[in-house]
This record gives sequence, C-alpha cells and structure tokens, in this order.
Amino acid sequence: MKNYFIAKSRRLRSTPYTERIENQGVTAYSVYNHMLLPAAFGSLEDSYHHLKKNVQVWDVAGERQVEISGPDSAKLVQLMTCRDLSKAKVGRCYYCPIIDDKAGLINDPVVLKLSEHRWWISIADSDVILFAKGLAIGQKFNVKIFEPNVDILAVQGPKSFALMEKIFGKKITEMKFFGFDYLEFDGAKHLIARSGWSKQGGYEIYVENTKSGLSLYDKLFEEGKEFDVKPGCPNLIERIESALLSYGNDMDNNDNPLECGLDKYVNLDSEVNFLGKEKLKEVRNKGIARKLMGVIIDAKEINVTKSVELINEKNLKIGELRSGTYSPHFKKVIGIAMLNKPYFEVSQTFKISINDSVFEGKVCDLPFI
Amino acid sequence: MKNYFIAKSRRLRSTPYTERIENQGVTAYSVYNHMLLPAAFGSLEDSYHHLKKNVQVWDVAGERQVEISGPDSAKLVQLMTCRDLSKAKVGRCYYCPIIDDKAGLINDPVVLKLSEHRWWISIADSDVILFAKGLAIGQKFNVKIFEPNVDILAVQGPKSFALMEKIFGKKITEMKFFGFDYLEFDGAKHLIARSGWSKQGGYEIYVENTKSGLSLYDKLFEEGKEFDVKPGCPNLIERIESALLSYGNDMDNNDNPLECGLDKYVNLDSEVNFLGKEKLKEVRNKGIARKLMGVIIDAKEINVTKSVELINEKNLKIGELRSGTYSPHFKKVIGIAMLNKPYFEVSQTFKISINDSVFEGKVCDLPFI
Repeated sequence: MKNYFIAKSRRLRSTPYTERIENQGVTAYSVYNHMLLPAAFGSLEDSYHHLKKNVQVWDVAGERQVEISGPDSAKLVQLMTCRDLSKAKVGRCYYCPIIDDKAGLINDPVVLKLSEHRWWISIADSDVILFAKGLAIGQKFNVKIFEPNVDILAVQGPKSFALMEKIFGKKITEMKFFGFDYLEFDGAKHLIARSGWSKQGGYEIYVENTKSGLSLYDKLFEEGKEFDVKPGCPNLIERIESALLSYGNDMDNNDNPLECGLDKYVNLDSEVNFLGKEKLKEVRNKGIARKLMGVIIDAKEINVTKSVELINEKNLKIGELRSGTYSPHFKKVIGIAMLNKPYFEVSQTFKISINDSVFEGKVCDLPFI
Repeated sequence: MKNYFIAKSRRLRSTPYTERIENQGVTAYSVYNHMLLPAAFGSLEDSYHHLKKNVQVWDVAGERQVEISGPDSAKLVQLMTCRDLSKAKVGRCYYCPIIDDKAGLINDPVVLKLSEHRWWISIADSDVILFAKGLAIGQKFNVKIFEPNVDILAVQGPKSFALMEKIFGKKITEMKFFGFDYLEFDGAKHLIARSGWSKQGGYEIYVENTKSGLSLYDKLFEEGKEFDVKPGCPNLIERIESALLSYGNDMDNNDNPLECGLDKYVNLDSEVNFLGKEKLKEVRNKGIARKLMGVIIDAKEINVTKSVELINEKNLKIGELRSGTYSPHFKKVIGIAMLNKPYFEVSQTFKISINDSVFEGKVCDLPFI
C-alpha cells in the first residue's frame, strides 16, 4: 500500500508531547478529536512485541475530556448513556456507550466521576461536547460544559507497574482496575487511573499541569531505562487481538450497542432515564439484525481502510470487515466484522477479496482467545 | 519540516473519489469531518499558479451535509445561527456562523435551503450533527436529522465556467453566485451550486448518486483536457491570499463571530431567535477584545502547525498567528492572526520567531488586497 503524508495545520492540533515524540521517531499519525494521535514508531509488529513484554509511554492527548459540572450534571450524563450510573462512585471510571434517541452510537467514552456534581467524559473520536451542549441548552439544564486542558499520557505494558511504582511509590500498585486517584509529581497533583487502551496493563495520567506533565514525561523515560521503556501508541495488532473496539472503525452512528456486543453496558431494566431506551427495548424484543463478531482469515497481510464485503458460497454478502491486521499470535489475519442475520454463527465461512486475491475466512466469537 | 505519514483506517473515511485521486498523484491528506481531504498533489505553489489560470477538480467530500427536515426545521436551523434566515429563499446558499449559547463559534457552514421544510448544512470540520440532534431532542422539535449520502466535487478556477458549460450547457453559466439548481448528467440530477472554497470562481456539485458522480468525475477530466484540467484541493496559498477563513485554523469555539470579522452575518437587530444573541449584544456594546486580522511578515517560508506568538517592541504578546504561508503574489509570508486589544491597528509592527530565527511583521486589514 502506498503511503501518503499528513498535512499538518493548527486545525489538527498538536499536543504538549508532539515535539518530544517527533524527536523520538514517530513515523505516522492518525487524527483523533481534531488532534494528532501517533500511530506508528516504525514497525507496528516490533512495537506490538515490545508492548507485550515491556513498557511504553503513549501520547494519547487526543482522548479529550468533556467536563460537565453543576446541579444537573448527573442527570445530563445519565441522559446520554444507556449504562445505569445511579450508583456510580467518586474515584471510579465507567465505560459508557453514548447513544442518541434512535439508539445509534455517538461515542464509547470512559466516564470519570470526579465528585457528586463534576464529571469527565474521556471521549473516543466524535464531538460529544456538541451533543452535551445541545441537550443541556434544549433541556435548560443547570450545568457548565467545557473542554478542560487535560492531555493524557498512557503508561502501558506489563512493566508499567514497576515503572510507575518507582516514580509514585507503593500506593499506585494498590489501585484497582478502573479506579483513579490523585498523585503528586513535581509539585502538581495528577489524576491517575488504572486503565488504558491495551490489555497489557497500565495507567492513564490525566495531565492538567502541562509543565509538570512534560517533566513527568521525561522522568518516565529516565526511570524506565531499566525496563526498556519506549515511546508507543495504541497498537492496531494488540488492540484487535484483545478485541478492544474502536469507535469509527468497528462501530458508528448506524449501529446500536446491542449489535456491538455491549449488552452488559445496556441497563434497560433500570429506573434511569436515557435517550434511546424505548428503541433499545424494541431491538431487544425483536432480536438484533446484525452482530459485531471476530473473523479469522487465511491470509498473511491486510490493510483495512474502508468496509470490505464478506461473501458466502452462494455469493451473498453476509457482512463487512471493519478492522483487520495480521496477527503474529494466530499467524493469520484477524479482524472485527459486522455480520448480518442469520450469518452470525460461529464457524460460518466466507470469502474476502484482499489486494485482488480471494481468501477464505471464518467467523468467531469476540474476544478471540 | 519533517514529513509524517497518515495512518489510514475506516475511521478516517475514504470518499468515492479516493481511488481516483490516488491514481492521479495525491501526495498528502488532511482529515476533515472524519474523512480524508486531499491536501496536496506535489507542489502547493505549482497547484496555486495552476488554479489561478486554469481549472481544477477537487474531491471535497469531507464537506459533509447535515440534513434537517420537518415542520420545525427552519426554527432549528435559525436557532443555531446568528444570521437572519427569515427571508431565506429556496435555491440559495447562505454562509452562516453557527454559535453556542456563549456565542462561541461551533462551525461556519454554508446553509442550503432545499425547500420550506428541508435544509442542508454544508459543514466545516466539527460534528454539527451532534449539536443539532442535542438541541432538537432537548427542545422536542419535530425534525429529522441525518447525514445524507452526499459527496461534493468542486470545479474551481477561471476556466471552470467553460468546462461546466461544455458538460451542462448554457444554463449553468447563468447561475448567480451562491445560487444552486438541479442539472442532469448521465441519468441523474445533481444539485450544483456556484460556490467553492477559492476566489477563482467555480461550482460545487453535491453528488448524491455516486455512480453518476464517478462518471461525471471522469467526464470532467476528459472534457477538460483543452483547459488543462488537473486534480486539486483547497490551496493554502490561494485561500490565505483570498482571506478565506478556516474553522479550526483561524477561529474556534473560543472565538465569537464579531472577533472574527463576521459582522455582516450577525443580525442582532433582527426579530429572530438564536443562541448567543444576548451575549453577542453584550460584546457589541462593550466592543471586541480581540480581532482577526492579516499579517505580512518579512520572511520567505513558514509552516504553521499551531498558534505562534506575535511580540511587540516591549516584549509583550500582542496576538497569535493561526495560519500562514509564503505568498508568491506579495513575495512575503502572509497570515491570519488574532490580535489582542489595543494592538489591532493596521500597521502595528511585531516580531515573530520562525524556525529559531526572528522576523519582523506588520498587521493589516483583511482581505489583503
């Protein structure tokens, strides 16, 4: 596949760490929430192996925050998500599908409850702030909504625990998954969550004090030498093997959360009021017409830049591939696909055309392992 | 400046024309409304000279449409913009700043009135559809809101009129600026507007029938040979010389339309109801605190990827440069900058650091000529 340059401009915002990662050899960018998101430091596969063994520091400032505070903040946040947040606790992160009144997915952020009347929505790639503002204005909610100056640094990989302990002390190793706390570095308190967009373990540091964040960035590389720390970024291979869904790639506004296997974050029998609730009840009653599933393809290479049709032995389209990669673990191409009813059975076979050649594939459950 | 690749994926949507422009030599992309927007076909300066003399075909599918229809559609569209649309006519385009309740800019689209109860908002780079949905849900408006399957082809440059006449006949040359009409090609009707993001003249073809659009694309190149037609894209040099503002580059949600010189699209004394009206009246009464202006810098080269400080002789920051380019016309660097009060006087001088060297510059009015 031919490569193309990215045309940088102020509209594709830099992060406080952009200059550092460019000195460290970033080779490709994606754009995420109107911001540069590093996408490769040379070979994806080398980076994948490194992430699974060691520790990486990621500039994921593109995961912007929407801050919602004020007396009606809990009501507004709940209105936007099908997950019941009535028992949400301060100091915890919640993965929350955000849907519209037709139950179409708008985003799949992690919501942080900062206090009873203050929330951060740590968003995937869509302008959730505009949805929140529109709803709040329309409903005359008493809330304040803005994008705070927060740039996330992720520390990911099995050695992230040892590295973070060296800097922040024993306390950080006691943090539970999807918990967060405030820890001090260089005179500033940083919100640190045990979370991150890999399944290799680690933390996300929500940096508000940019100056302290920059010196923390440098400190992570200094203290991380003994763990072979490297700069990195969300890794396509690792995230597909781990079946971490990507909004905009695997699912979008034309899909509802039940089609995407997000059932455990859909609380239809709760008392809470959210958009799309009736629509989702209809979907549940009728059964879903499409389902997001895994696929394994007998091929050694793929570059998915748009939906690719999956065809059965009768030459019917049974679904579409939305993400894919060669997996060093499975030694085949694996991917995430939306399968049409009635073809979402495990072991359903299909054909797919990649670079003008036809390959055989098989449907499987997610996660892959 | 070092170049970086763009990491393509389904999330950065391709357009129906992506394959064609890649065969025609596109070299760089930007991302616009989660879609690939071509940003260069080799040299920007060669393309600039060509655009000013001949005709180019641009894949600007990234200019997505938000369709709003239904009994409350006019009310919703008006609520979002400070421009009085009460006398808007079917068949006309309107440049409309969209602002929130704090009068912060959310987008600066062209609004097309398709019929009394059907509108297209042809958006710059932000998810206006989410703002519209949020407002409509909150206000319980009776409207339908969705992103239709529309991919714009722009035909720009002085010879665009002759080329389009060859294909669509005499009628198209009679179309007035910012008017639109439906014209047939290859069995499909296409909405064509006399508009486009250059000051060199031309049309935008709102393609709904993708198949017909693809054959129209090829036809434009076939019939355009005699006019030296080339593939192109919005050109940084031409658009800055022409002072065409770019949302996300020159202005964003922290700016209001009066600060951006959009006064003639702000109808505060009208009867219509829109968000931010009271706030803008306050701004008008107090006077603006900042102003978007032109700058001319004694330099031969610049790459603006983020705001750059402008410093006066007393070492005070007087404003920030937001876009810039070397201009073959002025033989200097020109740019668009936000100047703080009281420094927005024409001929105010400043210093600016570009690639570690300091250059002298001068503030001027927009447009430059």
